[in-house]
Amino acid sequence: MPKIALIGSGNLATQLGIALKEIGYPIAQVFSRNIANAKTLAKQLNCEFTDDLSSLKIADLAIISVNDDAIEKVSEQIKMPKVHTSGSKPLQTLGESNFATGVFYPLQTFSKHKKVDFKNIPFCIEGSNKNFTSLLHQIAGDLSESVHNMNSEQRKTLHLAAVISCNFSNLLYQFSEEICQKNNIDFNVLKPLILETANKITANSPKDAQTGPASRNDTETMLSQIALLKNNNELESIYKALSNSIIKRT
Amino acid sequence: MPKIALIGSGNLATQLGIALKEIGYPIAQVFSRNIANAKTLAKQLNCEFTDDLSSLKIADLAIISVNDDAIEKVSEQIKMPKVHTSGSKPLQTLGESNFATGVFYPLQTFSKHKKVDFKNIPFCIEGSNKNFTSLLHQIAGDLSESVHNMNSEQRKTLHLAAVISCNFSNLLYQFSEEICQKNNIDFNVLKPLILETANKITANSPKDAQTGPASRNDTETMLSQIALLKNNNELESIYKALSNSIIKRT
Repeated sequence: MPKIALIGSGNLATQLGIALKEIGYPIAQVFSRNIANAKTLAKQLNCEFTDDLSSLKIADLAIISVNDDAIEKVSEQIKMPKVHTSGSKPLQTLGESNFATGVFYPLQTFSKHKKVDFKNIPFCIEGSNKNFTSLLHQIAGDLSESVHNMNSEQRKTLHLAAVISCNFSNLLYQFSEEICQKNNIDFNVLKPLILETANKITANSPKDAQTGPASRNDTETMLSQIALLKNNNELESIYKALSNSIIKRT
Repeated sequence: MPKIALIGSGNLATQLGIALKEIGYPIAQVFSRNIANAKTLAKQLNCEFTDDLSSLKIADLAIISVNDDAIEKVSEQIKMPKVHTSGSKPLQTLGESNFATGVFYPLQTFSKHKKVDFKNIPFCIEGSNKNFTSLLHQIAGDLSESVHNMNSEQRKTLHLAAVISCNFSNLLYQFSEEICQKNNIDFNVLKPLILETANKITANSPKDAQTGPASRNDTETMLSQIALLKNNNELESIYKALSNSIIKRT
């Protein structure tokens, strides 16, 4: 099994390191520019650690899991086959290299302290050559049942779709929480409906799952809801824009 | 146990009828203006049926589960204690009455053929007098563990919050599906992240769960995503508006 160097000690590096070790991949070394973080993670993974990239020992694969903006700089100093784990950065961010380069992108949100089950997390894979792509496919396949070849353009577009369906949905949840708090309503009341709305699209296209006043073109209800937002320009204009998009689609 | 007349044969009337019968409430009669629908549901509930409101037999409680626009007209002809099941209509929609009136609103989306477990569905209850409110509380409590007293103003606001967090989220899912389809990306790849995004807010406030480029004020990524939307004015302006709302909040 390929020996792995883990570059980074953030949420994703931590979760990947733990999961890879568990299924038998030897983790050789952890790098972090913060030596205390490197040590903490190395202890969990029972491996060496460093805060000096130039002293990094050669492994079979370096997994670079650092902030998007740091990938390019970090990559310059890594003299072995390497991947980054970013959704929005193209393969080319790793630069020209005598070694194979690739992308190993798990599409999920991670927290440092909540252990992740990678089994159902989609991995998007790209490699600079066929053999390396298969190696990445194999490693991802050992972690997850959902592995996808995806070029940099597609991955960039997928990342956009993820921002729209997830970060923006979370904003809508936040709007709702704000409305509930202002009106002394328990936000918990909405949670089962929010969960069911997300669950529904696992079996049906969201196109077929739409409900509510806009999808019925129920002008009376929409106007009365807009009236409730009369002191909230921000939400009023978002309400109108999104309702119009629903109406256009039904 | 109070004997119930079920007014309507849509998704909610069907699911409520089945669930109430299962826990032992006698359903006396089903009304639908479509006699075939009335018959189908009555057969499931093993009760009488009619398409003529003036011939409705008196029960202890009429549950009026018809289209919002029809509630007022239907209610005029119902000479017994009665509730409607609408989120957006006030108690007063049932009109002046010698009998008690109330609202019995389960906050969830229903399909006719998917059996519903009411146990975790929040019921919002309102009654024209104390005794009737307790009766409604008791019936809702037999169906669900989540029963809430809520006046008409609060319920109207809750309905607005539900439209924003659920109908609008579903629209965002639909945008993402459209983007995936246009770019030959499997939309299934996004589903685990969509589910996790909804799941996250059961334990954390959405305020604390936000991630992504806008919450990091990562201008470079936002600009490159806006560039991907350059031929899509609708989504470009929604992307900008929602990103600005996230930035304002972080």
